[in-house]
Amino acid sequence: MNAAADAFAQKHHATLQAAMQAARARGYHSAYPEVPSGKIYGETAKAEADAAFAALRDKPFAAGPEQIGAERSPWGPALGISYPAASVADLVARAEAAGPAWAGLDPAQRAGICLEILHRLNRDSFLIAQAVMHTTGQAFAMAFQAGGPHAQDRGLEAVAYAMEEQSKVPGAVRWAKPAGKDQLVLDKTFRIVPRGIGLVIGCATFPTWNGYPGLFASLATGNAVIVKPHPAAILPLALTVRTARAVLAEAGLPEDIVQLAPDTTEAPIAAALARHDAVGIVDFTGGPLFGAQLRATIGGRKALHTEEAGINPVVLHSTADFAGLCRNLAFSLSLYSGQMCTAPQNIFIGAGGMETDQGHKGFDEVCAALAAAVDALLADPARAMGVLGAIQNPATLDRIAPARGLGRVLRDSQPVAMPGFPDARSASPLLLAVESDAREAWGEERFGPIAFLIRCPDATSALDLAAGSARARGAITALVHSTDEAFLARAEAAFARAGAALSENLTGGVFVNQSAAFSDYHVSGANPAGTSCLTDAAFVANRFHIAMARRQAAA
Amino acid sequence: MNAAADAFAQKHHATLQAAMQAARARGYHSAYPEVPSGKIYGETAKAEADAAFAALRDKPFAAGPEQIGAERSPWGPALGISYPAASVADLVARAEAAGPAWAGLDPAQRAGICLEILHRLNRDSFLIAQAVMHTTGQAFAMAFQAGGPHAQDRGLEAVAYAMEEQSKVPGAVRWAKPAGKDQLVLDKTFRIVPRGIGLVIGCATFPTWNGYPGLFASLATGNAVIVKPHPAAILPLALTVRTARAVLAEAGLPEDIVQLAPDTTEAPIAAALARHDAVGIVDFTGGPLFGAQLRATIGGRKALHTEEAGINPVVLHSTADFAGLCRNLAFSLSLYSGQMCTAPQNIFIGAGGMETDQGHKGFDEVCAALAAAVDALLADPARAMGVLGAIQNPATLDRIAPARGLGRVLRDSQPVAMPGFPDARSASPLLLAVESDAREAWGEERFGPIAFLIRCPDATSALDLAAGSARARGAITALVHSTDEAFLARAEAAFARAGAALSENLTGGVFVNQSAAFSDYHVSGANPAGTSCLTDAAFVANRFHIAMARRQAAA
Repeated sequence: MNAAADAFAQKHHATLQAAMQAARARGYHSAYPEVPSGKIYGETAKAEADAAFAALRDKPFAAGPEQIGAERSPWGPALGISYPAASVADLVARAEAAGPAWAGLDPAQRAGICLEILHRLNRDSFLIAQAVMHTTGQAFAMAFQAGGPHAQDRGLEAVAYAMEEQSKVPGAVRWAKPAGKDQLVLDKTFRIVPRGIGLVIGCATFPTWNGYPGLFASLATGNAVIVKPHPAAILPLALTVRTARAVLAEAGLPEDIVQLAPDTTEAPIAAALARHDAVGIVDFTGGPLFGAQLRATIGGRKALHTEEAGINPVVLHSTADFAGLCRNLAFSLSLYSGQMCTAPQNIFIGAGGMETDQGHKGFDEVCAALAAAVDALLADPARAMGVLGAIQNPATLDRIAPARGLGRVLRDSQPVAMPGFPDARSASPLLLAVESDAREAWGEERFGPIAFLIRCPDATSALDLAAGSARARGAITALVHSTDEAFLARAEAAFARAGAALSENLTGGVFVNQSAAFSDYHVSGANPAGTSCLTDAAFVANRFHIAMARRQAAA
Repeated sequence: MNAAADAFAQKHHATLQAAMQAARARGYHSAYPEVPSGKIYGETAKAEADAAFAALRDKPFAAGPEQIGAERSPWGPALGISYPAASVADLVARAEAAGPAWAGLDPAQRAGICLEILHRLNRDSFLIAQAVMHTTGQAFAMAFQAGGPHAQDRGLEAVAYAMEEQSKVPGAVRWAKPAGKDQLVLDKTFRIVPRGIGLVIGCATFPTWNGYPGLFASLATGNAVIVKPHPAAILPLALTVRTARAVLAEAGLPEDIVQLAPDTTEAPIAAALARHDAVGIVDFTGGPLFGAQLRATIGGRKALHTEEAGINPVVLHSTADFAGLCRNLAFSLSLYSGQMCTAPQNIFIGAGGMETDQGHKGFDEVCAALAAAVDALLADPARAMGVLGAIQNPATLDRIAPARGLGRVLRDSQPVAMPGFPDARSASPLLLAVESDAREAWGEERFGPIAFLIRCPDATSALDLAAGSARARGAITALVHSTDEAFLARAEAAFARAGAALSENLTGGVFVNQSAAFSDYHVSGANPAGTSCLTDAAFVANRFHIAMARRQAAA
């Protein structure tokens, strides 16, 4: 009934099948190349994207009766881009008007359109990278990878799971129950029915990576979607929505199946949208205060998927590669200045230090080596810029000065010159040594470039404290270094129970901060860091219901 | 590591595989014979069950420091059975102590134990039937079928879905990401981690049928379970828990993996149990008042699955078998005196009546024919007893007298003699004619033997009213009669959107009240009748999370 949707489904059939297979196998898989190379994306892609980004600046993104928008690049200038505002009532009315056409497609057609949207987003990765860089403060390489291909992979993963769950439901069956010598016979038909409008509430640090799973999971299961970006990071999602609407229009479908709902810090609309009766699904990435409000007001009736906040721990027991440990952990502490939801904050170490390939290292020696590794990593200004990026929110910078009083300063945080960006907000990691009973220091999330090296009675108590904190206060990731299989097994059991994804003995090119689509489950739902996982069956299964009609068969 | 669990898994392997296949195919399937026949269950089974039931009466079911229990059979006598009370703290402490041994089994072992429990419950179906009959008021045949084999099938279905979802997760994989000419390699292990203690809050009308899905879904996914029965229907779940504990003990596992938590109307413990931090999953069947409380207090953080209340509609447009329609609908209105969550309450008919194989029937003629069909069905006392059963709750009887004033009485409700049970509470259906604008009459749930024949402007408005009510106030089932494919298609779309399972043109031996495991999805979650479906992937997928540990592979 929709030739364009069928054509998109055909075009992307192999990509979808491979993604569904990868989601089951959970090994390495990626559909979208992560290298920002002209060989892959076209030799003119970068220059064209730079020009396109420049052309977006200092004007309306689209025009409407009322324009809003006050994005400022953490690298310096205000973007000067404005977006048409819309009321909650108008947004919902348009989504409801557009919804039936979308719900009426079959899942394969919807998946085809979703994959065409992702394909075009991938093609535009250089432009998305500029938009992500100049709203989140990420350095270009991260903005390209995490904001582009990796986010697209997360979106594709959500479509794959949605297809898997929808595919399970047969369209029509005959039910024949023996009744003595006779039979009772019913002809049954089943259909997938969307749950209601999907609302995606975006964040300021990873607007696409955290936004795409909910967007594509809700879309693929038949729901119209309203995308409400963070006021500080509208552009990446505005570009995303523009691409989605273009594909929908090409397929002869209502553009309002996907809508942008920008708002301002002064007049937020997320709560009113979430509470609206017509909204059936809410995906939220952001702080636990608003998360708690959502849980209390809509939890239990609507499908609510949140990623809120956590305090990610590291436990150092022993290592066969002390230099690699320090290099690897220094990078994880520095990357995007600790503004990743997966960045480590608390490093738990026994008071007696740790055994290493370089012999025994005391607590103070470990601290000094880590501080030195951070210094070494950031010594070259170009490299420092690429690793640290800029600070998204001035409040993150403001947190550093008072934090200095929370422990013994092992390495102070300093502004770092960003070549070419004289007005960039920047800060290198602040490393503090504290005792394990100083929970008032390490027991809170200190979002940004602040980390604690925590002296514990011994490695076992270090592990217990780390896992206990993850369970009670939330954590998305955990990292442990040990050469002792028994200690690793204990850590695996403790963090499994605490719901934190555990990395072990990372000394090379993989970092605890990284979470790969199709293989790493991101967020468990088992601790306060969030309610849901990107992506498992539970993330998609409650976005639709299965309607049945059964008819007495003709005699 | 657990030979007994392995043996049970082996013994029931074919049953589980067939159930998993049936849940995908959704045709007819049943693992437990529904006919209460000595040929199937053993010629002495009924007599032994009668003796066993008699032996349970007027004494403690088990002894503890404090005994509670005041069950009274709707068929007459008090049961005189008491149960040991336990505090919330003790119940949770015991569940937490028992939990790790259960979580430590693999899913196949847990499924094996669940299926052995179901197998023994099936063997005891005659005793379960007595317990269900004398707590719920169901007639014996229904108590046997719905309380025994059909409930067991629903439990098996939940185990099948739980196995399906858990089976998707690989145990260990190697992740190898190309990095230039090199590779980044991680060895990853995944494990299923239970969400927390499962709490099952039972109801008074179908304690096993509504209780088993949550019980077995939580158990099969690794959670210890606390079963909190309705104070009026403890015995069926007490017998269930006793059987479960016996199987667990045989397998060398802690009996407290499943616990009974009886309480009293005066001192209810469900809310305190549900709020306890250690409880991660709540399955609730009962009224919307407590349902709303659960949604507000634990929704959004814990997994909450409810079946609350709905008002099930019927739409009469036209029929090719008017006599069959009347017979079938009369039975649905009479069965268990309207105390099924699937029973119809509101029959919407156009003011112009309907076309039938007997020619045109005016609204009043349809009303009269239906009333006559109910009279005919209940004319024989033994048959009336078997169809109506007894009234579970005296409040249901009390509702009848004031209801008489809500419309024009087409057929009055009367006490019905129940041969052999002189003290049984009974009532035949009250049928009332009302206008479609009398929402104060038909717009509320009137649980029990009360039904409305609602005169609407025409059949189309009848359908719109019926579907609108289902969407706004909740409905689990809907029934439509029409010979017009376009009207049926419209009804299918409307009730799909409203989230009510639609039956069409039932004139024979299948009734709208019936919901068959493995084929019919019971409750959609899409309207206020409940949050969750028995059983789909969403019903099981949020009862566990997937924990990952990833380790840098040796170079």
